[in-house]
Amino acid sequence: MAQNIYDDPDFFAGYSQLPRSIDGLAGAPEWPALRALLPDLQGHDVLDLGCGYGWFSRWAAEHGASSVLGLDLSEMMLQRAIEAGHHECITYQREDLEHVQLPIARFTLAFSSLAFHYIVDLGALLRRIHDALIPGGRLVFSIEHPVFMASLQPQWVVDSQGRKVWPVDHYQVEGPRSTDWLSPGVIKQHRTMGTLINLLIDSGFSLNHVNEWGPSAQDLIDRPALADEIHRPMMLIVAATRS
Amino acid sequence: MAQNIYDDPDFFAGYSQLPRSIDGLAGAPEWPALRALLPDLQGHDVLDLGCGYGWFSRWAAEHGASSVLGLDLSEMMLQRAIEAGHHECITYQREDLEHVQLPIARFTLAFSSLAFHYIVDLGALLRRIHDALIPGGRLVFSIEHPVFMASLQPQWVVDSQGRKVWPVDHYQVEGPRSTDWLSPGVIKQHRTMGTLINLLIDSGFSLNHVNEWGPSAQDLIDRPALADEIHRPMMLIVAATRS
Repeated sequence: MAQNIYDDPDFFAGYSQLPRSIDGLAGAPEWPALRALLPDLQGHDVLDLGCGYGWFSRWAAEHGASSVLGLDLSEMMLQRAIEAGHHECITYQREDLEHVQLPIARFTLAFSSLAFHYIVDLGALLRRIHDALIPGGRLVFSIEHPVFMASLQPQWVVDSQGRKVWPVDHYQVEGPRSTDWLSPGVIKQHRTMGTLINLLIDSGFSLNHVNEWGPSAQDLIDRPALADEIHRPMMLIVAATRS
Repeated sequence: MAQNIYDDPDFFAGYSQLPRSIDGLAGAPEWPALRALLPDLQGHDVLDLGCGYGWFSRWAAEHGASSVLGLDLSEMMLQRAIEAGHHECITYQREDLEHVQLPIARFTLAFSSLAFHYIVDLGALLRRIHDALIPGGRLVFSIEHPVFMASLQPQWVVDSQGRKVWPVDHYQVEGPRSTDWLSPGVIKQHRTMGTLINLLIDSGFSLNHVNEWGPSAQDLIDRPALADEIHRPMMLIVAATRS
């Protein structure tokens, strides 16, 4: 089973205080970039992989999706999702994305926000997502950026001239990275951007758009704390189509 | 006109001493990765963009290409290419890739090695390459990696713990970068990886493969000086098909 850090009470307590946990999609600065890649959801059958509190599942339901299946490994997250409000068309299900069996040609849109970097065998998951989509179906996801994840000590470095830079090291060495984020020893899987793109292509997807999210001028006014994010790509947002 | 640094005598003198200038393709550690993405060249009509000394143009001619058009801005490079040996099927032509007019649907393969990072309007060039290829024609190219180019001071940083890291800063700020490489003030154009991929897609290409070149175990034995390259992606190699 994948590491289930979201059911660790300390991690969960920390996570629930993040802006994206309190304010939902509006608290996630990358949401406008993700939303721009989504189709009009009217009539869509949506798969939400790593649905967490269900913010996106509810958004999809409220924007006309015919059905939404939200999957997450964390019991505590799903409990919150269920408590957050009932929608006839949403089903939440506890599943480990590492091993989940998905129905064939059942969905028109697969969505995932910041979950894929926890997956060890992402190629296998992408092939299952491919098969779960109808031909022409779309996959839109965000993932922590390989440049954000690669370093063994991913913290800003100040050099001898006082210059603050983001460190890249061991970029070509793929595999697990253990970081202390809300809780010690959170395990993420580093893959190069090349590997990620090739996994998509080799799973039968055509790439439509890639966004290495960074703050807009308006973001910098609204959230000055994002200023450092002009220096590094923190998240990667991808839209692809099942061929 | 684009900066013509290769016709600067000092730069040219330095460039001509690089392993890739002396040993040709065999002197370029990324060549096996590039070659792996090339089709069998038998009968191909090849466009070599930024052909330099003509190493690839000659290789293509020697591997069965029907015709090769090698383009470069540098008179001194083209002179060397011509002196290096006559092939009936190769034509060299002095052109600024920034503004070159290419024939329509004339080529089956477009190739470019480490030239695109000098181009200001890469979108316009990619659209012309698209139109110069037959449907199904392939584009294979290498370019300096955005992570290699982004920093305003692209030199290894050693932090307070003695850890050597590659600095990433101003990644989201696209535009010219002036570096001292063989000669002061060499101008390259930084674009994010997302922008590069989207330019390809929006120009009508489908991505086939992306390789963020890094040394193999054998490379590290053969060329110990490449050891640092496991820490950063230095070059990006892309294969795409005209849809």
